[in-house]
Amino acid sequence: MTKNKKVNAAILIIGNEILSGRTQDTNTATIALWLNSIGVKVQEVRVIPDIEKTIIDTLNELRKLNEYVFTTGGIGPTHDDITAESISKAFGLNYEIHKEAFKILESYYKPGEFNKGRQKMVWMPKNAKLILNPTSGAPGFNVSNVFCLPGVPSILKSMLGGLKNEIVGGKPILSKTISLRTVESEIAKSLANVQNTNQDVEIGSYPFFQAGKLGVSIVIRSEDQSKIDNCGSRILEFVNEKKIEVIKR
Amino acid sequence: MTKNKKVNAAILIIGNEILSGRTQDTNTATIALWLNSIGVKVQEVRVIPDIEKTIIDTLNELRKLNEYVFTTGGIGPTHDDITAESISKAFGLNYEIHKEAFKILESYYKPGEFNKGRQKMVWMPKNAKLILNPTSGAPGFNVSNVFCLPGVPSILKSMLGGLKNEIVGGKPILSKTISLRTVESEIAKSLANVQNTNQDVEIGSYPFFQAGKLGVSIVIRSEDQSKIDNCGSRILEFVNEKKIEVIKR
Repeated sequence: MTKNKKVNAAILIIGNEILSGRTQDTNTATIALWLNSIGVKVQEVRVIPDIEKTIIDTLNELRKLNEYVFTTGGIGPTHDDITAESISKAFGLNYEIHKEAFKILESYYKPGEFNKGRQKMVWMPKNAKLILNPTSGAPGFNVSNVFCLPGVPSILKSMLGGLKNEIVGGKPILSKTISLRTVESEIAKSLANVQNTNQDVEIGSYPFFQAGKLGVSIVIRSEDQSKIDNCGSRILEFVNEKKIEVIKR
Repeated sequence: MTKNKKVNAAILIIGNEILSGRTQDTNTATIALWLNSIGVKVQEVRVIPDIEKTIIDTLNELRKLNEYVFTTGGIGPTHDDITAESISKAFGLNYEIHKEAFKILESYYKPGEFNKGRQKMVWMPKNAKLILNPTSGAPGFNVSNVFCLPGVPSILKSMLGGLKNEIVGGKPILSKTISLRTVESEIAKSLANVQNTNQDVEIGSYPFFQAGKLGVSIVIRSEDQSKIDNCGSRILEFVNEKKIEVIKR
């Protein structure tokens, strides 16, 4: 386990309901914040429809480009839940009943309630490793560097904790936010100077409106706290010179 | 203008703040719902970082695969706003001062306030067509089938209306939602039957928790209202047979 190298991940959101605008995705932020805390940086997010060929092609592209891929959605009991079968095909693995998952759900439901519909949820790629679900029983699964999670945000959230030991991250990505009562154009040049002399630090500038007033949040991100502190000091220097009000630092 | 063919779009969200989980994207839903209403279906969404090569490569891929591409983010005045320059490069166009945009912003700001930082926002691909901004002055732009919008949700929203005549959609995509007091496994088989005999209709099943109770929303989508009505009737038939409570139809 090396704590120095950068570790990248992609998130693959599978679901027509996100593409139609009917449902607002919140899983990206949940997964990204959790990954940051264990030293994994999300490099790319894709949202795709429930179409087998699209899932297979996209998954095969992303799993080669990233250390980890997290999918959300499409692992329930209905006809539009085709993630497990598509991922089996992407890896060239049999799509079959997972015995351990079967046992889990058999004892999760009352006798007689583990019907055909629910049994669909134990069909997975051969030898998949289960991701336990403390909320609603039906597990997700992991094949190679791909982790398949459900789409329902509360269930997904409850499953992430159990994954911590499966993911080997780099150094946690630290961040500092400085919020200013100003507009971006006032600080653009000075901020660019700080960025130019600190190329390995990620400095973002985000305007906001709050309680009828304009402001800008500057977000500094790095694995190295001393680099963040250094950029922070340089930013506060020009902020003081320009007599800009600091809302939060 | 043909109203029969399917028209697809991709949304390209440019911004480290979405990938880090700091900011929750809401622009996808805004754009997707608006596009649906004018007969354009979102086929894919990608979220990528503020990295020039990534923007160029992704844009060049998406603009060939889709009738329309909508980008959000990265067109402000700071160093991390590199969308306009990257898109110029993607199209092999000069990145230069747009005279009309310059005039708009010169008269938008008070004398002396149109400083260097703000002037960055009038640099665009040569001959770009402006997308007017009724909220905060700085326009977006359109090159070929690519439409570049800002990341701030309220500003983006205010700019979509002005785009309506630029987009030639197919038939509007209609939808009907039937919400049931049940769980997915109870209806999975019957719902699959309806889907199987109506392959050209998109039928999605989405579990929800509301006020402590479980339910399922079935969403039927098509350009053809009679097909939606037909699927709706067939669904309500099996729902009645199973004595499932209908919450909303």
